[in-house]
Amino acid sequence: MARVLTPRSEDFPRWYQDLVAKAELAETGPVRGTMVIRPTGYALWERMQAEMDARIKAAGARNAYFPLFIPEAYLRREAAHVEGFSPELAVVTHAGGKQLAEPVVVRPTSETVIGESMARWIDSYRDLPLLLNQWSNVVRWELRPRVFLRTSEFLWQEGHTAHATEADARAYARKILHEAYQDFLVQVLAIPVLVGRKTRRERFAGATSTYTLEGMMGDGKALQLGTSHELGQNFARAFDITYSSAAGSVEYAWTTSWGTSTRMIGGLIMCHGDDSGLRVPPRLAPVQAYVMVVKAGASGPSASEARGQASARDGMDGDGVGEAAGKLRDALRDAGVRVELDDRTETGFGRRAVDAELKGYPVRIEVGPRDLAAGNAVLVRRVDGSKSPVPFDSVVTAVESALVADQQALYDQALARRAERTAEVSTLEEAVEAAGTGWARLPWAAVGEAGEARANADGVTVRCLVRPDGSVPDAEDEPDLVAVLGRAY
Amino acid sequence: MARVLTPRSEDFPRWYQDLVAKAELAETGPVRGTMVIRPTGYALWERMQAEMDARIKAAGARNAYFPLFIPEAYLRREAAHVEGFSPELAVVTHAGGKQLAEPVVVRPTSETVIGESMARWIDSYRDLPLLLNQWSNVVRWELRPRVFLRTSEFLWQEGHTAHATEADARAYARKILHEAYQDFLVQVLAIPVLVGRKTRRERFAGATSTYTLEGMMGDGKALQLGTSHELGQNFARAFDITYSSAAGSVEYAWTTSWGTSTRMIGGLIMCHGDDSGLRVPPRLAPVQAYVMVVKAGASGPSASEARGQASARDGMDGDGVGEAAGKLRDALRDAGVRVELDDRTETGFGRRAVDAELKGYPVRIEVGPRDLAAGNAVLVRRVDGSKSPVPFDSVVTAVESALVADQQALYDQALARRAERTAEVSTLEEAVEAAGTGWARLPWAAVGEAGEARANADGVTVRCLVRPDGSVPDAEDEPDLVAVLGRAY
Repeated sequence: MARVLTPRSEDFPRWYQDLVAKAELAETGPVRGTMVIRPTGYALWERMQAEMDARIKAAGARNAYFPLFIPEAYLRREAAHVEGFSPELAVVTHAGGKQLAEPVVVRPTSETVIGESMARWIDSYRDLPLLLNQWSNVVRWELRPRVFLRTSEFLWQEGHTAHATEADARAYARKILHEAYQDFLVQVLAIPVLVGRKTRRERFAGATSTYTLEGMMGDGKALQLGTSHELGQNFARAFDITYSSAAGSVEYAWTTSWGTSTRMIGGLIMCHGDDSGLRVPPRLAPVQAYVMVVKAGASGPSASEARGQASARDGMDGDGVGEAAGKLRDALRDAGVRVELDDRTETGFGRRAVDAELKGYPVRIEVGPRDLAAGNAVLVRRVDGSKSPVPFDSVVTAVESALVADQQALYDQALARRAERTAEVSTLEEAVEAAGTGWARLPWAAVGEAGEARANADGVTVRCLVRPDGSVPDAEDEPDLVAVLGRAY
Repeated sequence: MARVLTPRSEDFPRWYQDLVAKAELAETGPVRGTMVIRPTGYALWERMQAEMDARIKAAGARNAYFPLFIPEAYLRREAAHVEGFSPELAVVTHAGGKQLAEPVVVRPTSETVIGESMARWIDSYRDLPLLLNQWSNVVRWELRPRVFLRTSEFLWQEGHTAHATEADARAYARKILHEAYQDFLVQVLAIPVLVGRKTRRERFAGATSTYTLEGMMGDGKALQLGTSHELGQNFARAFDITYSSAAGSVEYAWTTSWGTSTRMIGGLIMCHGDDSGLRVPPRLAPVQAYVMVVKAGASGPSASEARGQASARDGMDGDGVGEAAGKLRDALRDAGVRVELDDRTETGFGRRAVDAELKGYPVRIEVGPRDLAAGNAVLVRRVDGSKSPVPFDSVVTAVESALVADQQALYDQALARRAERTAEVSTLEEAVEAAGTGWARLPWAAVGEAGEARANADGVTVRCLVRPDGSVPDAEDEPDLVAVLGRAY
C-alpha cells in the first residue's frame, strides 16, 4: 500500500501535520493562528470534556461563565500577570460602529474578571471555599502557531477557587491535580504523566506554586498537559477578595486556578499515534468499534482476503452482510459500546480501511460474505493491527475484551517509551545531551537557577521538580529534589 | 413574610431584574453589555445544552468548532449579511503588541467562516448533506443590554448545513425547527411556542426564509426563542460552495442555518416565573427535588409548623432528621431524580425556603422532627405552593408523580395565558391596541408590508405568519395567511 503519512522517524512534525489533516481533525482558520476543529477532532474534545467535567464536579466545583471581554485595567492590577500576558493580548478598540473609550482585551485567561466577581460574592468564611470552573475559548496571540499545540484561540476549562487558608488552597490545587487531571490523563487518555512542580522560572504569571502534568510524546519531547496553580493571596490583594473570619477579623482569601485545553488533543496524537494514523484509547474513543460492511470481492487487507477469498460476483444484498453488520452494530450498542456502522460499499474497501486507521478507532469489525458464510466476522485491533476471525455470537465479548486490553496496551507502550528515553544523569551537559532524544533526570542542586538559564539557551527546559520518591514538592528549595529536563512543545 | 421580589403586576421588568439577581442566575459583567452567568444560571444552560444537543445529534448534525475571529472581508461577501451585522460588530485592531494589517471581527454568527470551510470540504453530491453544529459564544454590540435577553456577548448553538437541492434544505430547516427546537421548547421548557414564518422585514440578514418559535411571556409580550433559516444559494454563491452532481455538472449548494441561545433562559424566567421567583419545569431542572433538613423549632412556613409544632430544644443530631433526610436523598437519587440535600441548619429555615422558591426547584421535601416522629416528610410543590405530609416510604413515588404533573401544569398555565391574551382582530389599529396586553391575530392581507411598517412605528411587530390551520407557510404570499402581532423583547 502507498504510504499515507510521512513516517514519524522521517519527520515527526510533518507526520503530525499530515495526521491532523488526513484524519480530518482540524485545519488552520482564516485568521492567522486560529483553528477549525472538524467534527472528528471535536468529538474527541467532547469526550474529554465529559470525562473531565464529571471529575471536576466530583471535586465540588460548579460551572459558570464569565465574559470574553475584560477591561484592560483589570490585567494591570496584578503585576506579574500583566507582564506575563501583555505580549499575547488581542485588543478590541472599536465596537458598535464607534471607537471604545476604553479598549477591552479578549480574555487570555479569566483570573482577573473572576477575581472581581469573587470579591463581590464572598462575605464570610461560610462562603468559602468558592469552587468555580468555566469551559470557554481564550485568546493568546501566537506567532508560531501549530494546530492544537499553540493556537491564537483555543478551548479550555479554567478552574478558579478561593479558600480561607493557604493549606486549604494547596490541598484543593493538589486535589484537582491528582483526582481530576492525573486520573483523567492516566485512566482515560492512557498517558503516563509525570506530575511535579514547576520551577520559579516556569511558573504561571502571578502564581506562588505551579504544578504540572508532563507527557512524553513519540519523539521524546515533553508536552505540558495541564497545570494547577496556587496563587497565594496575590489575586486576592489585587481584587480585594476578603472574608470575615469566624473570629470576626477581615482576611484575604487564598486562591487557586487550574486548566487543561484542546492541547490535550495534540498530546493524544503525539503520544499514541503511529505511522498509520491516530490510535485513540478505548475509554476516550467517540467510536470504539467500527463495523464495516465488506462487499463481496472487495480488495482490501482483511483477514478473509488474506486467506484467499474468491472474488464473488453477487453484491451485498444477496449475501446478507449488510443485515448481519446491522445486527452486530445493534448488539454492540446494546452492550454499551460506542459503535458506528460503515456500509458505504460504493467506496473502495482499502480507502475506508485506511480512513478507519487514520482516525484510530480502537477496533474494527469487518463483515464480509466469505467470513459470514463460515459464521465469523473479522476483528481488527488498531493497537497492533492484529486481525482474527471471531464467531458471530462472540463478537461482543471479543470487542469488550479487546477494548480493555488495548487501553492498557497503549498505556504500557507509552510508559515503556518513557522509561527507555529517560536518562539518569549527573551534569547539566549530560542532561542537555540526553534531551536530544528524551528526558534527563538529575539532582536539582546540580542545575539551579543559573543552570536552568543555560539549558534554556539550548532549548532545553526544566519540565518539573519531583521528590526522590516521585511525589510532588511543596517548595523548590526542598532537599534532594530531582529535576526532569527535556525539550518541549 | 417580607416581599422578596417586586411583584410582576407592579413592574415586570423590575421583577425580572430582581429575580435574576436574587436567584443568583447572572450579573452584568464589567464591560458594558456583557454578563456573568452564575452557577445556578449556568446549570440551567447546561441542561438546555444537553437536551438540545441530543436532539441536534439525532437529526444527524455533528458538532465542530470554528474560529472566534473572522476576517472583515468575509462579512462583506454577502451584501445583506454585512448590512445586517455591521452596526453590532466588535473589531480587534491590535494583537500580539502590534496593529494588525487587517482588522478582524469577533464573530456575530459564523455563516461566513463556515461557508468558507464548506467550500473546501464539499466536492461531490456524495458529500451532501453536510450537517454541522457549533456551541460557542458570539458578540453583537448592544447599546441597551438586558441580562439573557440582549447582551453584547451570549452563548448559543448555531447549526449550518449544505444540501443538494432547495427541497432538501427546506426539509432540514423544518426538521430542526420542529424535531429539535419545538420539541425541546414544548416538552422540556414547557413553553407553548407559536411556530411560523417571519415576514421579509423580520428575516435574518441573508436568508430567503426565516422560521421562528415565539413564546408569550408573563406580561403578554413575545420572545423569539429560536430561528431556523433557509439561506437559498446566497452564501453558496458568496463563498463558492459548489458540488458536482451525479450527472457531472457543477452546482451551487443550498444552505441553512439555525440557532438558539442563552436568551432561552430569559424566556424560561419570564414564561414561568411568579412573584416568589423562578419555577423551573421538572424535565429541565438541574435540581428537581430539594431535600431540606428542618431543625427542631425552626420558624418557617412548613406544613408541620403550620399545624403548630412545639418548639423542641434538641438539635438535629438527637432527632435523626439529618439521617432521615440523607436516606431520602439517596432513595431519590437511586430512582433517577436529580436531588440536592440542604442540611445548612445553621441558616434560618425561612431564608433557605425563600431561596429554594427563588431558584424554582420543582419540589421541596422538608424533613423535620415532628413530621418525622409521625413517619412523614412534607412535600412542597413549587408550581402551586401546595404542602402536604407524605409517609416516608411514599416520598419517591409522590415526588415522581409531582414532577410529571407539574411539568404539565406549567405548560397548561402558559397555554391558558396565551389563549386569554391573544385577540382575534380584523384591523391593524385593533391589533396595535391588543398588543398592549398580548398578541393579536388578523389576516396578513389586512396588514401587508405598509401596515407592518406602521405597526413597527408603534413598537409592534409581526411576530410571524401562520396558515389558518396553524402550520408553517412556505412563502409569505400564500393566500389566507394569519399574521400574529405583538410587542417583543
